[in-house]
Amino acid sequence: MSTSVTLLAGGVGGARLAHGLARALPDGGAPGTHGGLTCVVNVGDDTERHGLHVAPDLDTVMYTLAGLNDEERGWGLTGESYATLSQLERLGEDTWFTLGDKDLATHVVRTARLREGQPLSTVTAGLTASLGVAARLLPVTDDAVRTRITTPSGELEFQEYFVRRRHADAVLDLTFDGIDAARPAPGVLDALHGADLLVVAPSNPFLSVEPVLGVPGVREAVRAGGPRRVAVSPIVGGKALKGPAAQVLESLGHDVSALGVARLYTGLVDVMVIDTADADLAGAIEDLGFEVLVTDTVMGGPAGRERLARELLALA
Amino acid sequence: MSTSVTLLAGGVGGARLAHGLARALPDGGAPGTHGGLTCVVNVGDDTERHGLHVAPDLDTVMYTLAGLNDEERGWGLTGESYATLSQLERLGEDTWFTLGDKDLATHVVRTARLREGQPLSTVTAGLTASLGVAARLLPVTDDAVRTRITTPSGELEFQEYFVRRRHADAVLDLTFDGIDAARPAPGVLDALHGADLLVVAPSNPFLSVEPVLGVPGVREAVRAGGPRRVAVSPIVGGKALKGPAAQVLESLGHDVSALGVARLYTGLVDVMVIDTADADLAGAIEDLGFEVLVTDTVMGGPAGRERLARELLALA
Repeated sequence: MSTSVTLLAGGVGGARLAHGLARALPDGGAPGTHGGLTCVVNVGDDTERHGLHVAPDLDTVMYTLAGLNDEERGWGLTGESYATLSQLERLGEDTWFTLGDKDLATHVVRTARLREGQPLSTVTAGLTASLGVAARLLPVTDDAVRTRITTPSGELEFQEYFVRRRHADAVLDLTFDGIDAARPAPGVLDALHGADLLVVAPSNPFLSVEPVLGVPGVREAVRAGGPRRVAVSPIVGGKALKGPAAQVLESLGHDVSALGVARLYTGLVDVMVIDTADADLAGAIEDLGFEVLVTDTVMGGPAGRERLARELLALA
Repeated sequence: MSTSVTLLAGGVGGARLAHGLARALPDGGAPGTHGGLTCVVNVGDDTERHGLHVAPDLDTVMYTLAGLNDEERGWGLTGESYATLSQLERLGEDTWFTLGDKDLATHVVRTARLREGQPLSTVTAGLTASLGVAARLLPVTDDAVRTRITTPSGELEFQEYFVRRRHADAVLDLTFDGIDAARPAPGVLDALHGADLLVVAPSNPFLSVEPVLGVPGVREAVRAGGPRRVAVSPIVGGKALKGPAAQVLESLGHDVSALGVARLYTGLVDVMVIDTADADLAGAIEDLGFEVLVTDTVMGGPAGRERLARELLALA
């Protein structure tokens, strides 16, 4: 298969599909004359903890592609220990954001290299190379974009909403601080324009995909983009497989269904990929102007991810 | 006992005597109307590792006072693990400077608070309070002082000389970058002027004590200082108990003996404390104008440290 694939991704859903695509493509998706995989990843959930720059979505995709992620928990590394975190707590730090000892090395190195003046995309390239990730990982931007959530209890920093308060608050509004001034990271626009297949991952449309599309130039590049553009619905049978996508769609006044997701992606992609559980919505989604692929979109393990990836690649 | 004690300290020797003094004084040396213990600590061996500010001497004294230090090894914390360090290595970092997972928390917090604008002395006060250290720990200065070692192989950063090359190089010269512009940290001069007993720890005279004395105002304050000023020789029987004090004295042209150390401290302290093994040098040291206390200066465990501390306190 000789295909250039560009994936727009948030955290877990994006990481799993990235993993499937990397398995389905030659050389683990390494860029080359035969194509390859580029993941353009959300940075709106990046945060500073204990003075360290933490990039949860980039890391989830990176760890998953490296085969190091904790599959059961969905985030962080396997075989983690928490010696530093307990000591941080003893030293008076707020430790509701769980950082494992191995994970911490990523943040320490990232922070040091950013402070030395490397842009986030360069730092990310160095980290992925060290971990043996073949596919290309790009933060959507090297500039700071920070997602803020308006809830009935007030405005919250993203991780405050997501981790500390376990995304239990209704989401009344979203802002992406810094997004209007952000520039796509080097390689992002080329990856969008040059892709044979452009995939919007089954990530949260508002919390993960929107802060990627909102970086000036990105949405336009997707709209103008490659021969085939597909999106995988993160809503299956009216529920999110992981995270607060269902609540967010609902509280922002959208249908909590693959159809509701399709409406958000009208004009952006050509093909909506929905789960067999939602086969009855195929007609309504086609009526919006999409092609529809109905398949098993619940990516259990690596084999399931690869199967879904191969079905997407067949669309190219 | 109602005594204000100020200890000038480097790493291990300073830490052990600090521990003895804290045990011998009321309330673990907590400052109060009854006196207390203030440790004025070298920062010339501070270094930046992986973008984090590491202060080895401050930490050795802090961990020892907190009862958390690895007694056998002489540095770092007991029960350490190294998960972050191995991951740092995997990410391409140079890891010859060993940092344990718990120890790392100290450096992460210190770095974050320094970057927030807290001076090192304030950060140190926060860390020692969190670890339950009663005595007061002061970096000699909040400004950057960096010891550099001239060796036959060229000039080396201190930890490069000390840790990476295991202090095997001959020391031809020493410089303390930044020392001329450094100001004593808040509280340092008061602690020197107000002390009932001023103690120079059995630390390396050139590598540990000199970068403390060299901060403008400190040597003068010691010279003008309290009713009783004593120094404990780090050389016992012609050898250093720990570290390269013997080699450094020798390569800089000094006698490798308690007498050689006494010559360095002429005019600075009133009493030289030497080991029973060096009793034969007492006369020669007295001839230099010192009082001499001959006792067991090899501080084995906590009890030995406390015994030595009580003998010093009896001098006040």
